[in-house]
Amino acid sequence: MVRVIPLLHYRYLCRRIDTVFMKFDLEAKDAASKARAGKITLGHGIVETPIFMPVGTVASVKGVHQRELKEDINPDIILGNTYHLYLRPQTDILEKAGGLHKFMGWDRNILTDSGGYQVYSLSANRKIKEEGVKFKSHIDGSYHFFSPERAMEIQRSIGADIIMAFDECTPYPCDYRYAQRSMHMTHRWLDRCVEHLKKVPEKYDYPQTLFPIVQGSVYKDLRKQSAEYIAGAGAAGNAIGGLSVGEPAEEMYAMTEVVCDILPEDKPRYLMGVGTPVNILENIALGVDMFDCVMPTRNARNGMLFTANGIINIKNKKWEDDFSPVDEMGITFVDTQYSKAYLRHLFAANEYLGKQIATIHNLGFYLWLVREARKHILAGDFYRWKNEMVPRLGQRL
Amino acid sequence: MVRVIPLLHYRYLCRRIDTVFMKFDLEAKDAASKARAGKITLGHGIVETPIFMPVGTVASVKGVHQRELKEDINPDIILGNTYHLYLRPQTDILEKAGGLHKFMGWDRNILTDSGGYQVYSLSANRKIKEEGVKFKSHIDGSYHFFSPERAMEIQRSIGADIIMAFDECTPYPCDYRYAQRSMHMTHRWLDRCVEHLKKVPEKYDYPQTLFPIVQGSVYKDLRKQSAEYIAGAGAAGNAIGGLSVGEPAEEMYAMTEVVCDILPEDKPRYLMGVGTPVNILENIALGVDMFDCVMPTRNARNGMLFTANGIINIKNKKWEDDFSPVDEMGITFVDTQYSKAYLRHLFAANEYLGKQIATIHNLGFYLWLVREARKHILAGDFYRWKNEMVPRLGQRL
Ligand SMILES: [Zn+2]
Ligand SMILES: [Zn+2]
Repeated sequence: MVRVIPLLHYRYLCRRIDTVFMKFDLEAKDAASKARAGKITLGHGIVETPIFMPVGTVASVKGVHQRELKEDINPDIILGNTYHLYLRPQTDILEKAGGLHKFMGWDRNILTDSGGYQVYSLSANRKIKEEGVKFKSHIDGSYHFFSPERAMEIQRSIGADIIMAFDECTPYPCDYRYAQRSMHMTHRWLDRCVEHLKKVPEKYDYPQTLFPIVQGSVYKDLRKQSAEYIAGAGAAGNAIGGLSVGEPAEEMYAMTEVVCDILPEDKPRYLMGVGTPVNILENIALGVDMFDCVMPTRNARNGMLFTANGIINIKNKKWEDDFSPVDEMGITFVDTQYSKAYLRHLFAANEYLGKQIATIHNLGFYLWLVREARKHILAGDFYRWKNEMVPRLGQRL
Repeated sequence: MVRVIPLLHYRYLCRRIDTVFMKFDLEAKDAASKARAGKITLGHGIVETPIFMPVGTVASVKGVHQRELKEDINPDIILGNTYHLYLRPQTDILEKAGGLHKFMGWDRNILTDSGGYQVYSLSANRKIKEEGVKFKSHIDGSYHFFSPERAMEIQRSIGADIIMAFDECTPYPCDYRYAQRSMHMTHRWLDRCVEHLKKVPEKYDYPQTLFPIVQGSVYKDLRKQSAEYIAGAGAAGNAIGGLSVGEPAEEMYAMTEVVCDILPEDKPRYLMGVGTPVNILENIALGVDMFDCVMPTRNARNGMLFTANGIINIKNKKWEDDFSPVDEMGITFVDTQYSKAYLRHLFAANEYLGKQIATIHNLGFYLWLVREARKHILAGDFYRWKNEMVPRLGQRL
């Protein structure tokens, strides 16, 4: 396949992202798969990879105290959503607070997305043009404009440790021509992000690192082209976007594989918005280091619990008089403090504590899962362990 | 005033509640007021009085983990609602669990109300007759019947340490004749409760103590009559019901005073459903030992914070960029972990964590308030302290 890089892009290929503060140490590579274990050094501490980043949309991981997040769930990094934070509390408040970390009382690392994804998924009225995206707030209907430049400025104000390039996340399915045009626009937008970021100094006393995003829908040739373009930007870490948007898991894995083979080995790879516990293990096996997803938190609020032995719908009447612990493994305090029957009752009675318990359980489990993966990568038996876990994780209990 | 005890009652006056497991030690009496400090010994530990009991309606203090309730808010006793627990999870589940304590994972004391109050306030269709109350569930519209006997049976199944007699809580305003008739019915119901309780053995391995309830609306003569009748039952503790239902605070205090002067000094006095921080201090000064109220939790969920310096509506825009701690006093971890601006943001963004923070703050404050009252009673300067606190507590910040 002949890879054609449009002329517009050539002039940027030599412009590498020149402010790289982040450090990535690759500690181990699995022999039987492409899984890796590493350490990312950032302004708010070290992130051990593979990592799952809990989603704290609007400066809060829904229903979870910062104390529980830190001491019980214990991730090295969480995610915030630029779109939500821009609308509420708004950047002026975040700036006055001294950035998102201080505002929300979280002294470990934060990654923010660029706002694009939520504009596409939450805003009813949005117009995507080369210049940027005009959209209507889902809260009050007011009009706003995001562009690569604005996304950089806003993310400077929020002050996350890792910030994301402004991209277009194509829907699924997406026809080839649209995916191709969109991908090139995402590339051009990346160049604008890089350029603009140089002009907007950091606002707080720690560095921020920009991750560019590979797009290309489910088309291998586009994914390759995009991965090469993104790799060419020389960023300290790279992201894969536009997956887990409805495509079959096999297509997702195929794209991850193509992209991971091109993205530099000595930089962390972040697969955005993925996924189920099985998705996470399979993508780790393909060389992904970082994940985020609303699934453990959102599904928790609907009564779905992920465990090492499969999935529990705690609303089911079968748990009504099951007084065994929420999860015998006892990863977090909620697992042994409460019984399945009690948790089921809280959901039946629509008591918010039920959502809180399920959320802490699921996040605790996701963090356990990636840590366990890391352990097995370091121990050299990841692939066997992964293949044992996958059928168990997907079961319905 | 001539006190007329209807004939029906005479035959019960000698029938004293004969299973008294509870112990009450009066430790100190305030010289300048009727405030007392004491210790109630129950099946799940000692309750230091004055005490405020957080309301855990349906086996959960809304939005508060049991760990936080125990370690951060730290009450010796909490309250559950019989009406709610009867409907969900239902008594068979509670029995299978080994009682409410085990079901919800709370190993300190619990008090349950009799279910009457919620029947009157939550059920649209209810018919009160001498035999009992027929009502329609507010959840699924099914019909149920509560009587003094059923209330005892249900409370045996729930298994609280202190259980309440089945009464009619009259509304405010309430005409004299209705209040009088209702009061006598409450007295007759008490006798039925006492009789029936003897026939229904305790279900778990700790004792339960029945508290009768004084009624009589806002009529001093009725309140006196009722207090004398209730005192005559010889219970280990006594309750005052039918207040804080809309009457002016002065009327409430007048009734509490009349009743406390009659209820035995060597038994704890529980004022049901009260109230604001000021109400609590004023009623402690009149000789009340125990309180419960949804105010700190319900108002918390609406953004109202009680502090030693007054009341904060955290939804107010004035807190938008106030990055000072939620409460400098730092009674619970939330007070110093989060800022006012952050808490205001959580309410503006409708994030449940806001309600969680406000709830822990308010309950922590209420428990601080009654503990502080206790300290001052023991130190002998309660009255002066109370008079200093009252104007501060009522301020709007
Ligand atoms: Zn391109
Ligand atoms: Zn009577």
